[in-house]
Amino acid sequence: MSLTGEMLIGQQRVSGSGDPIYAVNPATGEQLDPVYLGGSSLEVERSAQLAWDAFDQYRETTLEERASFLDIIANEIESIGEELVKRVMDETGLPQTRVEGERARTCMQLRLFAKVVRSGDWLDVRIEPALPDRQPLPRVDMRLRQIPLGPVVVFGASNFPLAFSVAGGDTASALAAGCPVIVKAHSAHPGTSELVGRAVQKAVAKCGMPEGVFSVLFGSGREVGAKLVADRRIKAIGFTGSFSGGTALMHIAQHRKEPIPVFAEMSSSNPVFLLQGALKRRGEDLAEAFVNTLNTCAGQYCTSPGLLIAEKGLALDAFVASASAAVNRATTNTMLTPGIYEAYEHGVSALCNNPSVRMNAQAEASDKPNQCRAALFSVAAEDFINDESLHEEVFGSAALIVECNDLAEMAQVAERLEGQLTATLQLDDIDFETARSLIPILERKAGRLLINGWPPGLEVGHATVHGGPFPSTSDSRTTSVGSAAIARFLRPVCYQAVPDSLLPQALKEANPLDLKRLYDGKWGC
Amino acid sequence: MSLTGEMLIGQQRVSGSGDPIYAVNPATGEQLDPVYLGGSSLEVERSAQLAWDAFDQYRETTLEERASFLDIIANEIESIGEELVKRVMDETGLPQTRVEGERARTCMQLRLFAKVVRSGDWLDVRIEPALPDRQPLPRVDMRLRQIPLGPVVVFGASNFPLAFSVAGGDTASALAAGCPVIVKAHSAHPGTSELVGRAVQKAVAKCGMPEGVFSVLFGSGREVGAKLVADRRIKAIGFTGSFSGGTALMHIAQHRKEPIPVFAEMSSSNPVFLLQGALKRRGEDLAEAFVNTLNTCAGQYCTSPGLLIAEKGLALDAFVASASAAVNRATTNTMLTPGIYEAYEHGVSALCNNPSVRMNAQAEASDKPNQCRAALFSVAAEDFINDESLHEEVFGSAALIVECNDLAEMAQVAERLEGQLTATLQLDDIDFETARSLIPILERKAGRLLINGWPPGLEVGHATVHGGPFPSTSDSRTTSVGSAAIARFLRPVCYQAVPDSLLPQALKEANPLDLKRLYDGKWGC
Repeated sequence: MSLTGEMLIGQQRVSGSGDPIYAVNPATGEQLDPVYLGGSSLEVERSAQLAWDAFDQYRETTLEERASFLDIIANEIESIGEELVKRVMDETGLPQTRVEGERARTCMQLRLFAKVVRSGDWLDVRIEPALPDRQPLPRVDMRLRQIPLGPVVVFGASNFPLAFSVAGGDTASALAAGCPVIVKAHSAHPGTSELVGRAVQKAVAKCGMPEGVFSVLFGSGREVGAKLVADRRIKAIGFTGSFSGGTALMHIAQHRKEPIPVFAEMSSSNPVFLLQGALKRRGEDLAEAFVNTLNTCAGQYCTSPGLLIAEKGLALDAFVASASAAVNRATTNTMLTPGIYEAYEHGVSALCNNPSVRMNAQAEASDKPNQCRAALFSVAAEDFINDESLHEEVFGSAALIVECNDLAEMAQVAERLEGQLTATLQLDDIDFETARSLIPILERKAGRLLINGWPPGLEVGHATVHGGPFPSTSDSRTTSVGSAAIARFLRPVCYQAVPDSLLPQALKEANPLDLKRLYDGKWGC
Repeated sequence: MSLTGEMLIGQQRVSGSGDPIYAVNPATGEQLDPVYLGGSSLEVERSAQLAWDAFDQYRETTLEERASFLDIIANEIESIGEELVKRVMDETGLPQTRVEGERARTCMQLRLFAKVVRSGDWLDVRIEPALPDRQPLPRVDMRLRQIPLGPVVVFGASNFPLAFSVAGGDTASALAAGCPVIVKAHSAHPGTSELVGRAVQKAVAKCGMPEGVFSVLFGSGREVGAKLVADRRIKAIGFTGSFSGGTALMHIAQHRKEPIPVFAEMSSSNPVFLLQGALKRRGEDLAEAFVNTLNTCAGQYCTSPGLLIAEKGLALDAFVASASAAVNRATTNTMLTPGIYEAYEHGVSALCNNPSVRMNAQAEASDKPNQCRAALFSVAAEDFINDESLHEEVFGSAALIVECNDLAEMAQVAERLEGQLTATLQLDDIDFETARSLIPILERKAGRLLINGWPPGLEVGHATVHGGPFPSTSDSRTTSVGSAAIARFLRPVCYQAVPDSLLPQALKEANPLDLKRLYDGKWGC
């Protein structure tokens, strides 16, 4: 497949007229062909109208039709073959095994949502049959199903060019819910976006879906995205990226005539509490595993462990010594984009210049471009508590160790944390009582609690939560990864006394779709 | 029980220091004792801190403890006896049968949520057990449950002084979810609020709940409410009331350092489509039922039918003639407050002064205060489509008939509607094809679709949706009535590789609470 640099609007390929976008290979600094020209109001209008026109038909496709569409998208992405892996590597500097793993995860996600669609559980069917003889008043027949919100705009993320991008989790869950999707492609990987977008476009045609169900637009700045979010035909937003980007979209969405939900996954420091027992018995192993995690893919995960919290003492000293040695001998890693590299350097400088903060170790510099040098800092809990700037995520392989005088101070630090995607406890059996005092605090702070693990490497399943209180996301009541993500794009509708022949298939008395239903207060078929 | 005019903060009774609030009997205009003094920052601070302090304990009460608390609240409300009915009637002008019915509904709602809590289905337990031998990577154990958001502020509504007020649906569902509640009482029924508040206060003591789980504050203007919504310890808002009130709260909540969800149920015109077959065969019956609904309790329902949409012709003319006759001979009804009466008169005047609108009929004036005169207007569909002011709800017994030239124009009107709580079709068998063309539009517009009913008189059950797209509510993905309302106040947390002894009861492998669980992708116990 040769790249053309065009946007995808329904079944068309369209050249933009906006500012040029070139992908850059961050490992070499070289510019990659072809040029992508950004879209304008014209393409926003066309794609939004197509999506709107497709909505009523797409949302009433059968469960099997929609599931099979998702399966075929996965097949089409796999069919691109090595060209896709190579282009992702060129555009992101990510290593081959990671890119292949991410491709597998992306296709697995699409197929998981296909299964979710087929099960029909997401329709949440509830039936309260009429009770004409009830006293003092008869009960009328009422039936509930979930329907999709409408066209969704998905913003591709820089750090997962496949799994959180054109056909990533947001797109898969929105399509599964019955929502047409317009992707605003991330300018860091336009070629990847075109390749995946064309795979989806093929699947749309193969499955006979209305063409407006999927489009991909480019735009160098924030203008195309802002116009999409403001468009009256768009009914929800999926976003993974920076705090400033996410809150800017929230602002636009809230100030529309009809405000719409924004599901933004933004920033998280992912605190890891190193409890005494674990630190004493296996501090060296923990240090090794930690630095390994910190350094993988330059720490460019939403869930990279950026904060370690522990009690002062010999065990912590030994941990810091081991971790520092590992950081000092770590090799550098290519960051995703020059912009991300600059932001990382800026974040590390700010820590270096903070008088309360000590640098423990830093990987040696490299003369290649955009190299992330892992860095490890320490700060006293008291200073951490009083300095909000230390709570901000530094995206990349930097971590800050917060040294506490005692358990009470450790609990204070936990209480002082902002909302997080994850919170982790490293513990041994002897630490269970400490864990029992921390868990109730951390439950209030995070969407996922881990014991003796490291937060990246999220499993995509039914129990997955990739979400958490603000500012880690804009809506803690949802997840952007895992099967529960479909609920973001649905709303309930009640059908009161609707004759069977006018009811949607999902709600007909005979249950032709064989759905799980809450019938007169009892779950069954 | 003698009324004291005090606020309720935890187990204390506290006198305010703000502006005085007197209830007014809208039927007579007389001021009712005692005086209620509004709260200040001091009471906001005290109640918010108490609620916060209560949260961790309250959210981990057992299902039975929490359910029994809700049951006992219902019992305590019933124990107030006739004093409550009389005070509600005095403060609202609502008739006795309505007040008794609303009290029954309020207690039924509390008991329904007690059943919901006991079932534990709301915990949405999902377990993905570890698969240590999975290739290429092992799967780690992951378990999901829902936890409550935190303290919730509930704003009492004027039009349901029991069912949407101090111990109404928002309070019941928030308490059921495990959230402490601070009620900002509506200034139109402070005595009712005190009586019900003290019943809840007693239940808190009887059940040994942490006192901060419930407080009631008064405030004459918007200040106390605004301070509560801005407080960092408050994590969600429940509101039923005007568009301006609801959007003001949304604005405050969105501009906090940590934005929080506002579940505001605001305004809805509740369109009723009168299809040709029904209009021809039983226009007279429809006219009678419609005017009866319009006039009940002065139309002061969120779901009062304020818009009728029909094709022009003899059948519609006959309907209008019958409905007009019924309106002309209708008696007036006391409105809830002088302010609501003034707003109604203002809304009716605006319709009278709109050159596109014709008045068909109006009930005769009364010399009693705050009397709602039913009024029926007509407008051509074209004018309705082009005049946004005609889309605004007039709260009370006023309705506008939108006359369409044909079915296509009727569909255009449907398409042009803002978000609604309800949409209704009056139809006969012959109208099914028309209904099939309208339902897909109306599903996009409303949270509840009714056939051959009238939208007030909402059944409170598992299939209930009292919600809809903006501006009918601030979040179409939820309901404020029925058992599904509990989901507003919950968020998912995933527990990854947490040892059984550190897991909450709901997630332990042995399933000690006997919960329905999605275990390894299959529903079971």
